[in-house]
Amino acid sequence: MAKRRKVSKLFKYKPVSVKDLLVEMKDISELMVDLAYSSILFKNKEIAEDVTELETRMDELNYRIRITAMLAARSVEDAERISAVLQFASASEKISNAAGDLSNIILRDMKIHPVIYEALEDAEERIEKYEVSTKSKLSHMTLKKAELGSKIGTYIIAVKRGESIKYNPSKGFVIKDGDILIARGSTTGLEILKGICTGVRTKW
Amino acid sequence: MAKRRKVSKLFKYKPVSVKDLLVEMKDISELMVDLAYSSILFKNKEIAEDVTELETRMDELNYRIRITAMLAARSVEDAERISAVLQFASASEKISNAAGDLSNIILRDMKIHPVIYEALEDAEERIEKYEVSTKSKLSHMTLKKAELGSKIGTYIIAVKRGESIKYNPSKGFVIKDGDILIARGSTTGLEILKGICTGVRTKW
Repeated sequence: MAKRRKVSKLFKYKPVSVKDLLVEMKDISELMVDLAYSSILFKNKEIAEDVTELETRMDELNYRIRITAMLAARSVEDAERISAVLQFASASEKISNAAGDLSNIILRDMKIHPVIYEALEDAEERIEKYEVSTKSKLSHMTLKKAELGSKIGTYIIAVKRGESIKYNPSKGFVIKDGDILIARGSTTGLEILKGICTGVRTKW
Repeated sequence: MAKRRKVSKLFKYKPVSVKDLLVEMKDISELMVDLAYSSILFKNKEIAEDVTELETRMDELNYRIRITAMLAARSVEDAERISAVLQFASASEKISNAAGDLSNIILRDMKIHPVIYEALEDAEERIEKYEVSTKSKLSHMTLKKAELGSKIGTYIIAVKRGESIKYNPSKGFVIKDGDILIARGSTTGLEILKGICTGVRTKW
């Protein structure tokens, strides 16, 4: 119930830049697809719940975009251009709904045919979540300095810090200990990242 | 019309491993999301048409999975487990349909509000397509040897060779000249990859 109240509060209209709304919708939709497949691969309910939470966030973003769009249209030409914005937002939301359907396989405790795992394990890239320990060299480092992409081929697709989540953090983002990094990469790259996050590995 | 005939031919039922069908559906759905956003960012109709083609392929894969699933169920337990397979396939197809909606913004020549470009340009990672020239060191090299992920942080998400397309190529995949690499990475990484593909850059 507490969660439901929180959601209805979030749905109140607040003016915010359409650009920021669109960036967030794009980032979340991509992240959700990654997370949804991962939740199944790892039979991980926590990741599946993250997907559900993001689905709620997407509903909210789509609602805000619709309101903002309606208020912005002043001429037929405006309305035409804004129509593309609405289609963009609606397609991103559809992606998120489909990702929700995927992770529901895990949340609903469906019996899962082993062929699904066989299929997912075939993937070259995977997603993992690691907490940055106080001993990790990453703590207080910017993503730019960490150079995880070019050095070990892993991408930080989102960072959870307490209750908030930052999608596609920029290069200037400063990692703190306690952050949970959601990373995409090869098995080898992610193994190295795990060592870096725990502090076992200090060079990369 | 020629294309339509080809599609209906593809739709004929052919026995194939469900695992292979699922792997392809997952890979295509992820690729389509990437490609759809890119088609808008670069106002690129060719990429948008790739998305449409992949949407047709997804329809076909979903059809095949349904047929195979129905033929495979022998008991209630079978049917339960196979139900998850159908949900997986259907969610992947929904993702692909939504990606199709996105790229339709480009295919239908909709008037696009500049805020959409501003939003997409903010992304850290992007997608590019490069043709491998005969002069490129990549020609005849396996992806494993190329080490593009760990060395320059770019991922080959698909390779087009003539009429066919290989999604998520494995490490053993041998690149040939004339191949079109569809790669995801940072602007810097992709700049380097472009140099490697054209043959201007011989070390990385």
